[in-house]
Amino acid sequence: MRAARLYDYDPEMNVELKIEDVPPPTINKPDEVVVKVGAAGLCRTDLHIIEGVWKDIMDVEGALLPYIMGHENAGWVEDVGSGVTSVKPGDAVICHPHRSCGICLNCRYGEDMHCEAGLFPGLGLDGGFADYFITNERALIKLNPNVTPLEVAPMADAGITAYRAAKRAAKLLRPGAYCVLVGIGGLGHIALQSLQAISGCRTIAVDREPAAQKLAKDLGADYVLDGGPDAAEQIMEITGGGAQVVMDFVGELGVENECWKMVRQGGQMFVIGYGGKIEVPTVHLVIQEINIGGSLVGNFTELVELMELNADGKVKMHYSEYKLGDINKAIDDFKNRRFAGRGVLVP
Amino acid sequence: MRAARLYDYDPEMNVELKIEDVPPPTINKPDEVVVKVGAAGLCRTDLHIIEGVWKDIMDVEGALLPYIMGHENAGWVEDVGSGVTSVKPGDAVICHPHRSCGICLNCRYGEDMHCEAGLFPGLGLDGGFADYFITNERALIKLNPNVTPLEVAPMADAGITAYRAAKRAAKLLRPGAYCVLVGIGGLGHIALQSLQAISGCRTIAVDREPAAQKLAKDLGADYVLDGGPDAAEQIMEITGGGAQVVMDFVGELGVENECWKMVRQGGQMFVIGYGGKIEVPTVHLVIQEINIGGSLVGNFTELVELMELNADGKVKMHYSEYKLGDINKAIDDFKNRRFAGRGVLVP
Amino acid sequence: MRAARLYDYDPEMNVELKIEDVPPPTINKPDEVVVKVGAAGLCRTDLHIIEGVWKDIMDVEGALLPYIMGHENAGWVEDVGSGVTSVKPGDAVICHPHRSCGICLNCRYGEDMHCEAGLFPGLGLDGGFADYFITNERALIKLNPNVTPLEVAPMADAGITAYRAAKRAAKLLRPGAYCVLVGIGGLGHIALQSLQAISGCRTIAVDREPAAQKLAKDLGADYVLDGGPDAAEQIMEITGGGAQVVMDFVGELGVENECWKMVRQGGQMFVIGYGGKIEVPTVHLVIQEINIGGSLVGNFTELVELMELNADGKVKMHYSEYKLGDINKAIDDFKNRRFAGRGVLVP
Amino acid sequence: MRAARLYDYDPEMNVELKIEDVPPPTINKPDEVVVKVGAAGLCRTDLHIIEGVWKDIMDVEGALLPYIMGHENAGWVEDVGSGVTSVKPGDAVICHPHRSCGICLNCRYGEDMHCEAGLFPGLGLDGGFADYFITNERALIKLNPNVTPLEVAPMADAGITAYRAAKRAAKLLRPGAYCVLVGIGGLGHIALQSLQAISGCRTIAVDREPAAQKLAKDLGADYVLDGGPDAAEQIMEITGGGAQVVMDFVGELGVENECWKMVRQGGQMFVIGYGGKIEVPTVHLVIQEINIGGSLVGNFTELVELMELNADGKVKMHYSEYKLGDINKAIDDFKNRRFAGRGVLVP
Repeated sequence: MRAARLYDYDPEMNVELKIEDVPPPTINKPDEVVVKVGAAGLCRTDLHIIEGVWKDIMDVEGALLPYIMGHENAGWVEDVGSGVTSVKPGDAVICHPHRSCGICLNCRYGEDMHCEAGLFPGLGLDGGFADYFITNERALIKLNPNVTPLEVAPMADAGITAYRAAKRAAKLLRPGAYCVLVGIGGLGHIALQSLQAISGCRTIAVDREPAAQKLAKDLGADYVLDGGPDAAEQIMEITGGGAQVVMDFVGELGVENECWKMVRQGGQMFVIGYGGKIEVPTVHLVIQEINIGGSLVGNFTELVELMELNADGKVKMHYSEYKLGDINKAIDDFKNRRFAGRGVLVP
Repeated sequence: MRAARLYDYDPEMNVELKIEDVPPPTINKPDEVVVKVGAAGLCRTDLHIIEGVWKDIMDVEGALLPYIMGHENAGWVEDVGSGVTSVKPGDAVICHPHRSCGICLNCRYGEDMHCEAGLFPGLGLDGGFADYFITNERALIKLNPNVTPLEVAPMADAGITAYRAAKRAAKLLRPGAYCVLVGIGGLGHIALQSLQAISGCRTIAVDREPAAQKLAKDLGADYVLDGGPDAAEQIMEITGGGAQVVMDFVGELGVENECWKMVRQGGQMFVIGYGGKIEVPTVHLVIQEINIGGSLVGNFTELVELMELNADGKVKMHYSEYKLGDINKAIDDFKNRRFAGRGVLVP
Repeated sequence: MRAARLYDYDPEMNVELKIEDVPPPTINKPDEVVVKVGAAGLCRTDLHIIEGVWKDIMDVEGALLPYIMGHENAGWVEDVGSGVTSVKPGDAVICHPHRSCGICLNCRYGEDMHCEAGLFPGLGLDGGFADYFITNERALIKLNPNVTPLEVAPMADAGITAYRAAKRAAKLLRPGAYCVLVGIGGLGHIALQSLQAISGCRTIAVDREPAAQKLAKDLGADYVLDGGPDAAEQIMEITGGGAQVVMDFVGELGVENECWKMVRQGGQMFVIGYGGKIEVPTVHLVIQEINIGGSLVGNFTELVELMELNADGKVKMHYSEYKLGDINKAIDDFKNRRFAGRGVLVP
Repeated sequence: MRAARLYDYDPEMNVELKIEDVPPPTINKPDEVVVKVGAAGLCRTDLHIIEGVWKDIMDVEGALLPYIMGHENAGWVEDVGSGVTSVKPGDAVICHPHRSCGICLNCRYGEDMHCEAGLFPGLGLDGGFADYFITNERALIKLNPNVTPLEVAPMADAGITAYRAAKRAAKLLRPGAYCVLVGIGGLGHIALQSLQAISGCRTIAVDREPAAQKLAKDLGADYVLDGGPDAAEQIMEITGGGAQVVMDFVGELGVENECWKMVRQGGQMFVIGYGGKIEVPTVHLVIQEINIGGSLVGNFTELVELMELNADGKVKMHYSEYKLGDINKAIDDFKNRRFAGRGVLVP
């Protein structure tokens, strides 16, 4: 089968994925499932993988190279292991990015991303930028009728990362409260829609790109700001003293230390993007009584919930389609923000 | 001033309110406020008051008669006590129905309706079916600009009763889950809009009246049923085994014992209407692990939140306007369900 | 192996279990585990099974008879299926009573008892009143060092049923609030200890049996009542208007309709025992704004938590030991409340 | 009356409070109450006030000097304003440190410390290091019988700051989970007892002082560490990968950046002490999915709950008693940690 494989990490990103012919995956365990890839989303984490950000954590010596990237996959079941009961060949499915064990205590509490024995295909082992992809039964959700893999693939990671943060935020947001979303890209535009679907709060979208600003407006953000130097000041005025929740989808370039200044007394900042460093005086944390917390990829049930919102027409992924063979162009366009929403690869 | 006073309780409701000329209320305590009534909603509890349902609880000997009814009031501040700081004459306000003390432990936990020293004007003491109405500062919320008393008066009681139930329900409802609303009248149509604003669930509206069904459809209910004998069966089929939440705005006539049968394992029934009796085997409660709970009028902060949803255009009261002098006609139309939504009296 | 099998249902309970020699269970699926039984608790549900209460739900035609009863099992792993990774032969374990699938949505939300494909050994299929017992990997928790199966077996069902109710109660109970526990038997005495371990509330234990009253006192209940006709009145006086939570471990004989009268405004009654019928006016539910809800067996993570409390010495099972061959005597003693706490069978 | 007044701020703390004769406070508003001081606790915030840490926030020009310090007060009601109904002269009371308005939205949500019109006697206006002290009715809680002001005065601020953090922590801590408490002084020893009273978690106390270590052991901490350079490592080993909650009562001197390294994936750090600066990479927040949040003084209902725990004998204040005239010695002993627990001034 065709596959796009990474051969080297490079902080400068002067590397390209190689489109090659490789043997398709085969089932070795009773709970495994092979999926014919319908679409695979391109994620900022893919850029970070190529840059080597994850090298020390996942692939210290680079010994796992080369491998097929791609962790936002949807398609159709091609083959199932002997113990699989919930899906059968032909079923349209979306794949949660983590292959969790279902036995460890974190799994039992529903936190699949904290699974002690989890695997993350596309990062150190073969992912979905290919014709076929292998995962396990616990990762799969059947698509609602009339939903196609292409429409939802990036929900598998970008979508649930945004939805998880939005769900955590919604618990803190009453009607009349404000949520600031900084960065309206692949994640931010899903968080915005999710918030509108599950909370009665007001939303303030912040992005420097006109295309992203337009997307935020089209999606119904109550306020859209251009993220200029007076952004924090504008937000203080709109909100009368700060937002109850601020979501930072950037997490670097100084944005991370602007964001906590926008939080109202008693409020919360969610850090979803990464790369920078939070620096905050403890006296500010105490007097303002604010929380600063990271938010990771969502768990399985969050992907289920997001797919329900999608089926109900409440949350849709905005995407640009690329052929698998054009993956390096897609990566280049992504780096340079040449599309709004998400880039999706189709084999 | 003109006022509509109740002179007698009668289970058959063969009594009329008398429109009379009475002295306007005057301020006796530093926290009191006189409001020029802009509009006052007519509530099913008013019918129950006239019937004498509350007599034994609030007015055992009928010694408090006659009094002015009306507990869903909005208008403009006319006069304030010496200790009042948050409103001034001319401010447009809506009045929470309970005059709470702010000192007892229930008040400190925010549960104004459970106040140990609370007063409920319109039930045993003078309410708002009149030109002027007296309450205390803690009961008042300033209206957002461009909102008129007429548009929101019934939010003061019907609205927050519905919103409180919707808010409690929303905590139990994930996207993809179902909420059944039985009875789409003054409360039900607010609960429906509130749920859509603050939760991503699916809604099933049930009412025997075509006008109420139409209102539910217009407001965007996902399913609208006519409440025939197979309602529970229909709901089992739509939901695939029961709804996560069922709201009973009727609470009598056998409806209360149909509703808990519609609840899914692990789910909740909220009882908002009253008059009947729940009869349920304990083995059903245990195996199905369902909850059956009453829900009362909302507290002050819930009225604040509802007014924010209203200001944002997310929840609107549907009402029919009557002149104060036509109050007995309004009551008769209400008893016979001749209008959808709420009836509102204007002095 | 030896096993105690049920051959018939009888509402009068004039049947005995037969102690017989039967083939031991063998592994057929990759996730199965055979456990050498160390101890098996005797549960009130066992009495209800013999009475045929569950016949219509689980075994309509009695076609599953005869089978080995016993659903509160602990022991040592004897043999494991090919896919089992978390336990090995020799490990001391306690068995959650439900064999859950780990794939359905209820399992993914952590609610193992609501599993759509779950099995409950001891009720319609072979349980643990025997030398060996078969279940699946997902049901097993390794015991902490120095904990023996005999000390904890009834935790597997009685324990987590009580703990789950206590955990739900603890969320509603602030310091200074009151929890009433009606029935201090196998479940009640675990709920009492659990509450004291995880909540700062005050406890009021109610039981007619002097032995149970003594146990409650020894375990540190703040008040111990004898459940006479003025119990509700006594509780109103102690609590100054009702308890925030009332747990009913009886659920029949009229107790169920005494219990909701003891609940304070805004409070909760948990129904854990069953057999009777709740009858409550909707107006009481609404004005008092109380909740009445069933509570079922706890899920897997609740058993984990309870075993941690046990390892920390905070919750201990009080039990009377019987030889497996004396099971019919144990059942008779149980029916006649001849022991406090729980009866446990040892092969 | 006698009073200890501050005349100057000094970062080096080379100033003493002056013991002087001043006129006692008198009632000017209907909700005011004069309290005869029984005892007043000495708080680390008092040191920070003298240092001028709060000068820029509360008293920019030093124009409010001189004033009586002391914000942890308990005593007996001496005189009440015309509108006061819940206390009368002679009642023993403890005083919440914030005079809140009861009208603003933050008050209505129960968050007294976030009151928009709140006053904090002892910081910029006269406090309780004196014979008499004035506050308002909303700040007062009647003491349980047999509780004396001396035993509880520091509960008013140190106590509820610790209890609030413990209460927030308890929501995150299941049985078997770990909570680390760094700094077992006036706050830490209350948080430790509170946690044990309201949660089933395991506790790890960390302090460099042998007297504090002994106090932690006496109070039943599961582990007591001396806070050496390998503290984080020790905690990783005890907890098997990090604590679910870490409470930092120091908040400076580098401790604040050791603490977040002790937090387990998905866990929380509470910052209660202050003075330093948190510096944490966003990628750590995201991958570990941890929260870092400040925790302020508790609200009124938290003081109520703490007083109930105290009345039940579950949480006691350890203190050293000083005469009001010896306040400068008390301050010196405090700076040099010459007593464990809290210092208390008695007029």
